[in-house]
Amino acid sequence: MSSLSCPVAVFTQFSSNKEGQEQNKHKLHCLKFNGTKNSSPQKVDFISSQDHHIAAMTSVNPPENMKPQNRQKIRTKKQQVDPYRQGMIVEGVECRQTVVIRSYEVDPNKTATIESILNLLQETAFSHMWMSGLLSDGFGTTHGMMKNNLIWVVLRTRVQVDRHPIWGEIMEIDTWVGASGRNAMRRDWVLRSQATGLVFARATSTCLMMNQKTRRLSKIPDEVRAEILPWFIDKQAIVEESAEKIQKLDDNALYVAEDLKPRRSDLDMNHHVSNVKYATWMLEAIPNEFLENHQLSDIILEYKRECGISDVMQSLCEPQEDQNSLSSNRTLEGNRRLESSNRGQFSYTHLLKIKGKPGDKAILKGRTIWKEKLQASPFSP
Amino acid sequence: MSSLSCPVAVFTQFSSNKEGQEQNKHKLHCLKFNGTKNSSPQKVDFISSQDHHIAAMTSVNPPENMKPQNRQKIRTKKQQVDPYRQGMIVEGVECRQTVVIRSYEVDPNKTATIESILNLLQETAFSHMWMSGLLSDGFGTTHGMMKNNLIWVVLRTRVQVDRHPIWGEIMEIDTWVGASGRNAMRRDWVLRSQATGLVFARATSTCLMMNQKTRRLSKIPDEVRAEILPWFIDKQAIVEESAEKIQKLDDNALYVAEDLKPRRSDLDMNHHVSNVKYATWMLEAIPNEFLENHQLSDIILEYKRECGISDVMQSLCEPQEDQNSLSSNRTLEGNRRLESSNRGQFSYTHLLKIKGKPGDKAILKGRTIWKEKLQASPFSP
Repeated sequence: MSSLSCPVAVFTQFSSNKEGQEQNKHKLHCLKFNGTKNSSPQKVDFISSQDHHIAAMTSVNPPENMKPQNRQKIRTKKQQVDPYRQGMIVEGVECRQTVVIRSYEVDPNKTATIESILNLLQETAFSHMWMSGLLSDGFGTTHGMMKNNLIWVVLRTRVQVDRHPIWGEIMEIDTWVGASGRNAMRRDWVLRSQATGLVFARATSTCLMMNQKTRRLSKIPDEVRAEILPWFIDKQAIVEESAEKIQKLDDNALYVAEDLKPRRSDLDMNHHVSNVKYATWMLEAIPNEFLENHQLSDIILEYKRECGISDVMQSLCEPQEDQNSLSSNRTLEGNRRLESSNRGQFSYTHLLKIKGKPGDKAILKGRTIWKEKLQASPFSP
Repeated sequence: MSSLSCPVAVFTQFSSNKEGQEQNKHKLHCLKFNGTKNSSPQKVDFISSQDHHIAAMTSVNPPENMKPQNRQKIRTKKQQVDPYRQGMIVEGVECRQTVVIRSYEVDPNKTATIESILNLLQETAFSHMWMSGLLSDGFGTTHGMMKNNLIWVVLRTRVQVDRHPIWGEIMEIDTWVGASGRNAMRRDWVLRSQATGLVFARATSTCLMMNQKTRRLSKIPDEVRAEILPWFIDKQAIVEESAEKIQKLDDNALYVAEDLKPRRSDLDMNHHVSNVKYATWMLEAIPNEFLENHQLSDIILEYKRECGISDVMQSLCEPQEDQNSLSSNRTLEGNRRLESSNRGQFSYTHLLKIKGKPGDKAILKGRTIWKEKLQASPFSP
């Protein structure tokens, strides 16, 4: 038996080759591989990070009990229960992890932030992998992937939040994997209240394999397929007829957050900016006045490329025109417009992009749906 | 029996009154209260945050199982063991919590970041509080504090890290509280490897009580003293003869990180910028080249005031002159100077301050000590 994780923290640059030309950008969707056995893998260039290099230094052998393998204790066999992660394998192939919402994972209203939820999704994916006995030394890679120099790249993540967990609340998160066409993998999650069993949120993501050296997308080699296939199930947390097409914003977008820069502390184990950070930047463009009275109920993140450590980004967002007559007073009241809208749902289109570079430098396209808060905080009287 | 937490996320502005005059700034140390029963409480002005206001909205009563008290289940009695937090009371009054270092808590070398460690310290402090049965509805306040409108303000935190935990490592964190003079509280922590019992890090912090309405520091009322005193023990994770005096940097500091701005996502449950965020900003001034080859072994954070949501900050830092002849080629090689220094310890003095405001607008003074990495990563061959 085998398993795999979809570490939502590895990014592809889908749009350009070294000469800066655009090649088949929008076609590079996971579904592209469906049935196209002879399609050649796509070239994927990563923007080189100035921060990747770790200087070679004199290595000192650590004592036995400080060697990573004795500290991490990554299992080589399937583990039905992990008491420290409070995880267990359920239904044969799913992972259920119990977590307590921590003091620093909540916003001023004491409800879990979307960043915290995305982090917990990543963590439970890794726990699944950890318990499967298939985790190698890489960033969520299987042994077969490691052997073939393959890493995961996330294409798309969607999270639907019906109820936001609050500080101290105990949540049960179920996660499992399945096929998405022949060469992509889908990972799904359901977040439930441990006390009541009530579903609070659902999520799904799609990822592909990329050769770490050639930077080309790869089919799933038979060796890796043999590892992961026994863990696949046909079950969907969010049923989507087809992936929603997200409009690409231009510089006329209503709201813009400028000067977003990655910091060293934003880099993850793969020496890339964590994709949760991209989501944070994406949401920075939404006016504070709106965020105070609304809460996120649905978010789609479509990752296009990664940013370099020296890039400066811009986050654009625009209310969707077809809802609640949002466009009627668009230029008159600016940021405050949405506060006076009728109660209901509000939808935004997002674009996170590299500023000041020629051509199409989209990092992330997104769509969010928000609901008016019925009360300012679950703690309000 | 009772307990209390020292939520390292509440800040005081110690330096000025409303007229911007400086009053007794440096005297406002916790030790000041020792034996001075008649000293009047100090005025502490918070910089008003534009983001504090939550609009009053029509309140809809949630169903019974969605009420915070039924979701958080804050205990009103001491709880010896908390299976979900993996916490237990040891030695009668200490809290021991077991945590797994998560995938998003580590840096590119797969070792826990100082931010993650500070977050875990905060979390275990809250767990201690949670299990004590003394936690009220506020931000780590006791029932007596809530009744008296008191909140905690953190003055100082010090963390010494001998070994950095790595991804997936299981850590045991012990925390306890004790007196610091008559009107301050000290909280200490020890972080140990669960597998070997080896101590990885030690920490201590000092905090005071402040009246939330008047913004004045407060003595500990008898009612609150009765709650917390039974939990006090005389035990120190870090023994310090006296608090190290941190030099105040001026604008001639060698390294400066500019344009640090709080974002909405930086606000914590108390509607303040999380103090872990201040530490992140403080460390932003250290050159990347240095960070690649060195790891933090000791950090002192002295909190002076909080920043407002619209403030722009500057983070200054300067190598300490008296170590490893750091000053000898100071102006010649800039950032790269430290890389060629002799192997050993390096010390920096830090200042995080509000930019462009007249007078003394220090937010945080700090001192860090770094050790050269013996290997680039614990995962290096």
